[in-house]
Amino acid sequence: MNQRLQNLMHWLQERDIDVAFLTSTPNVFYLSKFYCEPHERLLGLFIFPESEPILICPKMEEHQARHAGWMHEVIGYSDTDNIWSLISKTIEKRGLRVHTAAIEKEHLNVERYENLQNLFQNAHFIAAEAKLHELRLIKDEQELTILRQAAYMADYAIEIGVGEIAEGKTELTILAAIETELKKKGIQQMAFNTMVLTGTNSALPHGAPGANRIQRGDFVLFDLGVIIDGYCSDITRTVAFGNVTEEQKRIYDTVRDAQQKAIDMCKPGVPFDTIDRAARSHIEQAGYGNYFPHRLGHGLGISVHEYPSVTDANTTPLQEGMVFTIEPGIYVPAIGGVRIEDDVYVTKKGTEILTKYPKELQIIKK
Amino acid sequence: MNQRLQNLMHWLQERDIDVAFLTSTPNVFYLSKFYCEPHERLLGLFIFPESEPILICPKMEEHQARHAGWMHEVIGYSDTDNIWSLISKTIEKRGLRVHTAAIEKEHLNVERYENLQNLFQNAHFIAAEAKLHELRLIKDEQELTILRQAAYMADYAIEIGVGEIAEGKTELTILAAIETELKKKGIQQMAFNTMVLTGTNSALPHGAPGANRIQRGDFVLFDLGVIIDGYCSDITRTVAFGNVTEEQKRIYDTVRDAQQKAIDMCKPGVPFDTIDRAARSHIEQAGYGNYFPHRLGHGLGISVHEYPSVTDANTTPLQEGMVFTIEPGIYVPAIGGVRIEDDVYVTKKGTEILTKYPKELQIIKK
Repeated sequence: MNQRLQNLMHWLQERDIDVAFLTSTPNVFYLSKFYCEPHERLLGLFIFPESEPILICPKMEEHQARHAGWMHEVIGYSDTDNIWSLISKTIEKRGLRVHTAAIEKEHLNVERYENLQNLFQNAHFIAAEAKLHELRLIKDEQELTILRQAAYMADYAIEIGVGEIAEGKTELTILAAIETELKKKGIQQMAFNTMVLTGTNSALPHGAPGANRIQRGDFVLFDLGVIIDGYCSDITRTVAFGNVTEEQKRIYDTVRDAQQKAIDMCKPGVPFDTIDRAARSHIEQAGYGNYFPHRLGHGLGISVHEYPSVTDANTTPLQEGMVFTIEPGIYVPAIGGVRIEDDVYVTKKGTEILTKYPKELQIIKK
Repeated sequence: MNQRLQNLMHWLQERDIDVAFLTSTPNVFYLSKFYCEPHERLLGLFIFPESEPILICPKMEEHQARHAGWMHEVIGYSDTDNIWSLISKTIEKRGLRVHTAAIEKEHLNVERYENLQNLFQNAHFIAAEAKLHELRLIKDEQELTILRQAAYMADYAIEIGVGEIAEGKTELTILAAIETELKKKGIQQMAFNTMVLTGTNSALPHGAPGANRIQRGDFVLFDLGVIIDGYCSDITRTVAFGNVTEEQKRIYDTVRDAQQKAIDMCKPGVPFDTIDRAARSHIEQAGYGNYFPHRLGHGLGISVHEYPSVTDANTTPLQEGMVFTIEPGIYVPAIGGVRIEDDVYVTKKGTEILTKYPKELQIIKK
């Protein structure tokens, strides 16, 4: 039994929970090392306080689970199998009495929940999320090594993107060049849809790259990340093309300084809300408070957005081993947007910044 | 009120359902024309039998909903709002008594379900999926026009991919070239992760493209699709590189003939199981029955896999206006895999095949 499973089993014992049923790709991966994107099919992990866990997955994925090192019971099913009848037979053999079951309430759908209620009649269902957040919160040395690699490839991607900038090129053309180079390096999946946004399109925090062409005086904003061995990176850099106005320069410097202030405050014991406020008040003092509409950052690991949230409502103190993003931005509709984002690992005394691409304002002349 | 909303409202009236709460991106898009991928945030559509519907979406997406033509009530929320309290206040104003509510049981998660149970106390919750399947099943002229465009771009992608084949090139390099060309044509999103699989990797129905290099005697399998205006295409073609053995040729011809037999049977009134069996028995007779482990195809539209399923267990008869894939395959571990997939639209008397890339065995010599 691996240590992560043992930790969860220990929690079940302590809390007198009879079973946990986990269903999201990240949590199943965290506990089993088996990374499976089952689409509409069921992926699940039954974990018990004392006995061997059971993995449920499509039959055609079973050998991948074994290959990933899963040594315990597996229920593999084909598309024509009645999955819940297979599960019910296996569970019955265990002779359990389930009074309390932990599930991923933010992931499990109602159809499966009803099947589970049928399987564990009269059971009380509690949310497993908080415990999983806690378990995944502190990254170990092996996870950190992978996160460093993922950040390194994110830096490389920005380098490619900046190198591709030229007058009249479209956002999608630059995006394609970035992803092509990453694929040549063996990157199979991005952490989310890559963003390359130019001009006023960069002022949309959720803008989509399209046929907009780079023009002199534009900001060009890159937001991207890669997945390596199941872990994500997430970086944002903004550069300018041709020339910038005084106001653009002021916006850029405000974001950069706000980000640096927040990073400089990070160390164990300092609460997240203090970090968020450090950046936010710097932006407010520069007069751009209304143009920074989102939280300062988010946890990063197996999921690109994971616990904890870096907001001014989160009073949790930082701990060594946490990894999260710091990404203030200013978005002025008629001018464009600037966001600068790094992946931050909390060390014993401060931080290690995993993403390292330079942050001085670059004005690309080409 | 658009016709699609009216159709759903009519169903609510007929079945005496007091409210439907729909939450999946495809169903919300189908009913509202607003395409929103909210990630972990809530997207929802309340539809009532008599009164105006209500859209719930992140505040920053609200203008996109308006831009897409949504003219009815919107509850836009920020990340710090208590969403369910906002919803509750709005719903209370309507003065509803909810005895029966329809939800997407395969999409709604338990956390939101519990909030909904709290909102509509003592209500009975039924599944809305079957009705939505039925509504989305028959594609209208406008949908068909978009699906034709999406299929056209899928054909183009195969053309690019086949043109890129050369000895020693990796799967990921070819994949990158395809996606680069598509982005140049303005394609912002693929329908699913593009597959380029070579050699024995092509024998894995869910293989992932990687650093495998094309060698003489390999099959090269492409499976890909694009999204245009919210609708998907999905095509598979397999070509050979350098030379083929007699057995490879026999495998290819068997798949191609099986696919053609299935297509030739498609017309209104013929049930799906007959179509599946036509292809399957051809493959079985050739001695490859054990190497065709999946269903013959799946519905296609807003979702890349949607209702109906083309299996030997589905006795639903074809109707004019349905769109689905036909994609038999033979996967022999030591040799490689062949799959051929087209997007099929059922016409009054037969079919229109939306994907048109040639299907004769091509042996690339380069």
